[in-house]
Amino acid sequence: MAHPLDDFYAVIPAGGVGSRLWPLSRADAPKFLHDLTGSGQTLLRDTWDRLAPLSGEHRIAVVTGRAHRAAVERELPDIADRNVFLESEPRDSAAAIGLAAAILVAREPDVIIGSFAADHVIRGTRTFEFAVQQAVEVARAGYICTIGIQPTEASVGFGYIKKSGELDVDGAPEAATVERFVEKPDLETARSYFADRSYLWNAGMFISRADVLLDELARNQPELHAGLIELAEAWDDRERRGPAVDRVWPRLTKIAIDYAVAEPAAERGRLAVIPGHFDWDDVGDFASLAKLNSHGRNELAILGQNARVLSDASSGILVSQTSRVISLIGVQDIVVVDTEDALLVTTSEHAQRVKGVVDALKLTGRGDVL
Amino acid sequence: MAHPLDDFYAVIPAGGVGSRLWPLSRADAPKFLHDLTGSGQTLLRDTWDRLAPLSGEHRIAVVTGRAHRAAVERELPDIADRNVFLESEPRDSAAAIGLAAAILVAREPDVIIGSFAADHVIRGTRTFEFAVQQAVEVARAGYICTIGIQPTEASVGFGYIKKSGELDVDGAPEAATVERFVEKPDLETARSYFADRSYLWNAGMFISRADVLLDELARNQPELHAGLIELAEAWDDRERRGPAVDRVWPRLTKIAIDYAVAEPAAERGRLAVIPGHFDWDDVGDFASLAKLNSHGRNELAILGQNARVLSDASSGILVSQTSRVISLIGVQDIVVVDTEDALLVTTSEHAQRVKGVVDALKLTGRGDVL
Repeated sequence: MAHPLDDFYAVIPAGGVGSRLWPLSRADAPKFLHDLTGSGQTLLRDTWDRLAPLSGEHRIAVVTGRAHRAAVERELPDIADRNVFLESEPRDSAAAIGLAAAILVAREPDVIIGSFAADHVIRGTRTFEFAVQQAVEVARAGYICTIGIQPTEASVGFGYIKKSGELDVDGAPEAATVERFVEKPDLETARSYFADRSYLWNAGMFISRADVLLDELARNQPELHAGLIELAEAWDDRERRGPAVDRVWPRLTKIAIDYAVAEPAAERGRLAVIPGHFDWDDVGDFASLAKLNSHGRNELAILGQNARVLSDASSGILVSQTSRVISLIGVQDIVVVDTEDALLVTTSEHAQRVKGVVDALKLTGRGDVL
Repeated sequence: MAHPLDDFYAVIPAGGVGSRLWPLSRADAPKFLHDLTGSGQTLLRDTWDRLAPLSGEHRIAVVTGRAHRAAVERELPDIADRNVFLESEPRDSAAAIGLAAAILVAREPDVIIGSFAADHVIRGTRTFEFAVQQAVEVARAGYICTIGIQPTEASVGFGYIKKSGELDVDGAPEAATVERFVEKPDLETARSYFADRSYLWNAGMFISRADVLLDELARNQPELHAGLIELAEAWDDRERRGPAVDRVWPRLTKIAIDYAVAEPAAERGRLAVIPGHFDWDDVGDFASLAKLNSHGRNELAILGQNARVLSDASSGILVSQTSRVISLIGVQDIVVVDTEDALLVTTSEHAQRVKGVVDALKLTGRGDVL
């Protein structure tokens, strides 16, 4: 990018532990604070680096929990203090993104915000930038715009966005309206979606004028909207922010932005989509982490700078966070995650069940390793 | 046993690391110093407890490496100092058992010795004692006698002993002569052996007059025999033992007792066998350790007093030597061995390949974990 987009502000919601990546991801070391690609830096930092050319470094806001403030500032030393929005406790994505929208619109009425998860992996910078540029054009035209990923397989791990007609917006040749959102499908349905090119993966990227997004939220979640406006009015006043947070935060509705904003907007024909042709993954579980890090089938992917591994006829993924010697012999599609206080052994096939273990650990009083 | 056998001395060769049980077994923590059955005590101590009623506690000798002296004395606090025979370096089983025979015969010319590995698992005390009592009768009659285990399956993991004719010895109704020894067979051969009840597993148990055993050794390995006699003559003299060991030990022939004594004796019709009907296992690898510790198919056996395990739809064996939480999800016939400085993940099917890893670790300069 030669120049950032003048009216664009990037928002990075950095919440979500990533339970299905336990014991790598923890409450105190969530997914976005890990290097899951071997890039040498965290997913959060990757996200920042991807957005900075679009918005400029001084126009990236991060919404995160108080517990992660220090880690976020360590990863992003150039972030302005006023661009770190701290949640006193998690209230799901509508509250996180809505808060950012409300604060930013109070500072800059015509601002366009784009929200991008802190813990997704994207490859293909120019294609990504082209998609965001188009989405910003569509947002300027008054739509809420999402970027839907053009599927590369019949995945059952993602929700889908059904495109309908083309949308005529200058500078956005690929824009279309969204007919509807669909939840994660079964395999047969996923295959039919994959064959029908009008279904895209829902990557949770939303680009919109902040005021348009807030209007949509007011329409569907008036109480949540009122709370966020109350917070935003007090936010930039050091004396008023604390009391406002104490007063408002506990009663903010917990709801995903998809339900509170995107789906209702789609029903009213106000949601647009730009197809994203770049590689994207939400790294939802170890199966996807394995796929992301392996260079071929029947290979063992290894994550961990100091891994001491001796592998014989094994494939899958090994995550090493200790200095122990690890030997894998004759295990296929294995998932081994070796940390100081917890060890996980499973297979790609069962990667989705890791969340159940986390729930069981909570119930059985072993929350010390979560 | 009401009374021990007067002329019987038990010998426990406690050598052998048990490489195929790495990283549980180590040079400094060999197999015989582990509790592999959940009995609450080491295999060495189990062996002592099994032999004490037969020989009396003051007539059990242990042949072990200098490095293990402290551990052996900790496990066997009642062992007499004069019954600990220390090897300056491993010289295989003919040297270990031959040394014990030579020392003991010098002390007691008519002694009958029985050697029993320190790291095998036996269940069925009365049946075991009955077999040893018969073997001692056969030994008194001048034979070298082994106890061969009546197979319970067509195992390819053990060598076999082929019985031939019955042997008429008072007090040994099951005695037979041995036709030959056979190495570990392939599966088809193992099946034919199993169908033919005259093949027994070679469990490495030898009972013989010490002088008879030494005569056989002299016939087949005269140099080794001469060295052992030279050592034994000096052994009980504190001033002479050290110089004799320094002089003789480095040139002792490395050979297994099977080749140096048992097989040649069998060829001359001097080897007898008593069938052992007790449960026996040499716990040679993790597959056999899993079988030994599981109470049924599709179950996860857990070894480790402080194991913190959360298992879901998994089977096999987990050995835990740390306080880490270990979660296994959907892994079948898995072998997981979790120690402070090394982790092994394999399957029962590949258990035999663990030794290859140990060799590779040696070659790649990671001997610190061996």
